[in-house]
Amino acid sequence: MATQNAEATWEGSLREGKGSMKLGSGYEGPFTFASRFETADGTNPEELIGAALAGCFSMALSAGLGRAEFNPTKIHTTAKVHLERINEQLTINKIELSTTAEIPDIDEDTFMDHVTTAKDTCIVSRALAGVNEITIEATLNS
Amino acid sequence: MATQNAEATWEGSLREGKGSMKLGSGYEGPFTFASRFETADGTNPEELIGAALAGCFSMALSAGLGRAEFNPTKIHTTAKVHLERINEQLTINKIELSTTAEIPDIDEDTFMDHVTTAKDTCIVSRALAGVNEITIEATLNS
Repeated sequence: MATQNAEATWEGSLREGKGSMKLGSGYEGPFTFASRFETADGTNPEELIGAALAGCFSMALSAGLGRAEFNPTKIHTTAKVHLERINEQLTINKIELSTTAEIPDIDEDTFMDHVTTAKDTCIVSRALAGVNEITIEATLNS
Repeated sequence: MATQNAEATWEGSLREGKGSMKLGSGYEGPFTFASRFETADGTNPEELIGAALAGCFSMALSAGLGRAEFNPTKIHTTAKVHLERINEQLTINKIELSTTAEIPDIDEDTFMDHVTTAKDTCIVSRALAGVNEITIEATLNS
C-alpha cells in the first residue's frame, strides 16, 4: 500500500529556535514555539493533525455513504485541536469535529449513523488512539 | 493552552470525488483518492501526520537536550508513513523516523537516550497511540 513522506527541521533551542515542516507533496511551513503554544503566525503540528483528521473523516464519510448507495454532494468538516496540560504533560486532549453535509435523499438517523461510523473508524481516527476524546457535531443539508 | 484549527472538504464520491485540507495558518492542499492511495499529485492525510510527527519530535529533542544543558544547532528528521491493510482495514501500521542532529559536546549514548525519550514522549507520538510501530534511526554530527 501507499507510503507517504514528510520531513522537519528544528534549529536552535526550544524557545529561541525555529523550525519548518515539509510535506512530500511540496508545502513547507515554518513554525516556532510561539506559533505552536501561543498565537504567533506560522504552522504547528497540531493544526496538521486537525487537517489530517478532518480530511480523512470527510473522505471516509463519503466512502461509507457511497457503499450504502447515497451520493454525497459536499462534506465540509472543521477541526479544533485542544492542547492541554494533563498530569504535567502537554497532551492533545480533545479534537472537536464539526461537519456539514449535502446529501440528497437521506434521513437524519441514517446520516448520523454514517457520521458516527466514519468518526470512529477512519484511518486517522484509529491512528489517534492516544487523543482522549474526539467529538463530532453534524448538520445535514438535504 | 493553545487550540489549533483546520478544516477539510470532500466533494463527490470516494473514487471520483476530490477534496482539500486547509490549515488554520493558511495553507490549503488538494487531495484525491489517487493522491492518497496511489501516486498522483496532491496531498493526503498521511503526509500531514508524518510532518506533524517529524516536527514535534524535532522540537521535543531540542527541548530535552536544552534541559540537559546541551545546545543543539540543527535537527533534521524525515518520516515515512506506511499505510497497510491489517485485518481488512487500511491502517497506519508503521512510521519510520530518521533524524540527523548537529549537537556540540555530546557523546553518542547520551544523544541516543535523548532521541529515544523524544520519540516515545513527544505530544504527537503519544497522540498516535493507534499506530502499531514508530521507529527511529539517528545520526549524530558533533
